[in-house]
Amino acid sequence: MPPETLTPDRILEATEDVLRRYGPAKATVVDVARALGVSHGSVYRHFASKAALREAVTDRWLDQSHAELSALAAAEGPAGPRLRDWLAALFAAKRRKAGDDPELFATYMVLADENSTTVERHIRTMIEQLEQIIDSGVRRGEFTADDPAATARAVWDASGRFHDPAYAAQWSAPDIDDAFEAVCDLVVKGLRAHG
Amino acid sequence: MPPETLTPDRILEATEDVLRRYGPAKATVVDVARALGVSHGSVYRHFASKAALREAVTDRWLDQSHAELSALAAAEGPAGPRLRDWLAALFAAKRRKAGDDPELFATYMVLADENSTTVERHIRTMIEQLEQIIDSGVRRGEFTADDPAATARAVWDASGRFHDPAYAAQWSAPDIDDAFEAVCDLVVKGLRAHG
Repeated sequence: MPPETLTPDRILEATEDVLRRYGPAKATVVDVARALGVSHGSVYRHFASKAALREAVTDRWLDQSHAELSALAAAEGPAGPRLRDWLAALFAAKRRKAGDDPELFATYMVLADENSTTVERHIRTMIEQLEQIIDSGVRRGEFTADDPAATARAVWDASGRFHDPAYAAQWSAPDIDDAFEAVCDLVVKGLRAHG
Repeated sequence: MPPETLTPDRILEATEDVLRRYGPAKATVVDVARALGVSHGSVYRHFASKAALREAVTDRWLDQSHAELSALAAAEGPAGPRLRDWLAALFAAKRRKAGDDPELFATYMVLADENSTTVERHIRTMIEQLEQIIDSGVRRGEFTADDPAATARAVWDASGRFHDPAYAAQWSAPDIDDAFEAVCDLVVKGLRAHG
């Protein structure tokens, strides 16, 4: 059997393993190549530099729940429950990442600091999905929003406690789900159109 | 003229100066006493321990804008504008603290970490003031809130970006005032009663 083809995905998997094992300060491209049983030149053919590799692995981590969230944003039906589902799916994904493997989460916090452009792009995508839900609510006569882009940003900011990793330590607090529901109530009510 | 009387306030002033000068890791009660020209025994007559002194100075710092905020919370008149004014006054006070003396701000971040009970008490007071405004809005028929305490907490959480020191680095961003206004719009609309 020929050896498995070296794909960007396999390299990113191995990079995550190496980061988990050595920590973000020590992990090198040579470690990644060694873990894959290839030369570091082979890795560089896919990622031009260590920085590019670290950026790509950050991007992949941030976008882990992208498919589920973008499907919700694009779905049909009432926008209010959809917005709640979207915020709940995002919160669940973030909690999972923070809770399942706190060390890897801490590693990605370091990578996120290094790759602020990638993080900003991710946040922009998230806010665009919120805007998509708000737009559909406005079209359905469910929501009012003079400036849906600004409103989407406000919903993002107002729900920060439930997706900003700065709050990860609070995500296992006993009252966090009640707090989440209360913010959802306030935000959805704040979007409602009234005759 | 007799020497100035040693009051708790004078000690706290001096403690802040000493913290600013030596940093939170190095500042001692002896430094505070020396700055005041008194014995450390005199300081201990007012504050039983170094920890008690650090807690008191943290409390004082957190409550700096307390008078202005509690006056707003207790005022008469429409609750919507009052809520905005309250959130704006809190944001302005936090920005002032973070912007005027970033080093002292960083020092107080260290103290806040040490004194989480004091910080929690401060947050409880803030949320009670929000509840007071929401209650008065409900009494005036301006707001609806099934559970004003939970709603007050939701308003606190939703406005976190504009008072949580974790976001201090963003408070000088060019779009921060627009973001603040958009969150206020959303929150106040979320509280409005509708016939």
